[in-house]
Amino acid sequence: MQYKAKVYVTLKPSILDPQGRTVERALTHLNHQNVEGVRIGKYIELTLEGERADVEAQLRDISVNVLSNPIMEDVRFELEEQAVEQSA
Amino acid sequence: MQYKAKVYVTLKPSILDPQGRTVERALTHLNHQNVEGVRIGKYIELTLEGERADVEAQLRDISVNVLSNPIMEDVRFELEEQAVEQSA
Repeated sequence: MQYKAKVYVTLKPSILDPQGRTVERALTHLNHQNVEGVRIGKYIELTLEGERADVEAQLRDISVNVLSNPIMEDVRFELEEQAVEQSA
Repeated sequence: MQYKAKVYVTLKPSILDPQGRTVERALTHLNHQNVEGVRIGKYIELTLEGERADVEAQLRDISVNVLSNPIMEDVRFELEEQAVEQSA
């Protein structure tokens, strides 16, 4: 079975986000004064092949050890079955 | 009313993603041969204050014109009401 994974990596709330601050300031200058709390993270999509339980454990490992830095970042993921195209 | 927005910026499918390819190759070397199609995008959180219809139009404008490059990237967003903390 093929699974599509979506991984969200965000900076921990206590970590400063200078990129987000810069975007926030730019938005203020563009007349969006009602915007605040801009935080910029990563969104990663990947496809995994295997049994659900294995793929889930593997994805957890990849998310925590490869795609994020657990000291500074939080990570969460979603896994969904992917319909495989049938050849006629 | 305060709204929390989540914005997902992804490269268009026809655009090469060298960062994703590099991660994919690294994963293969780490014994994750069943992983493919790694694509790396951005995940942006922000808070907006105002009426829902206004905020939605404003968020669409910000997403398309500030947070993404419509030539190379797709963007989608979610908007949810944020409970405002009551002071006792």
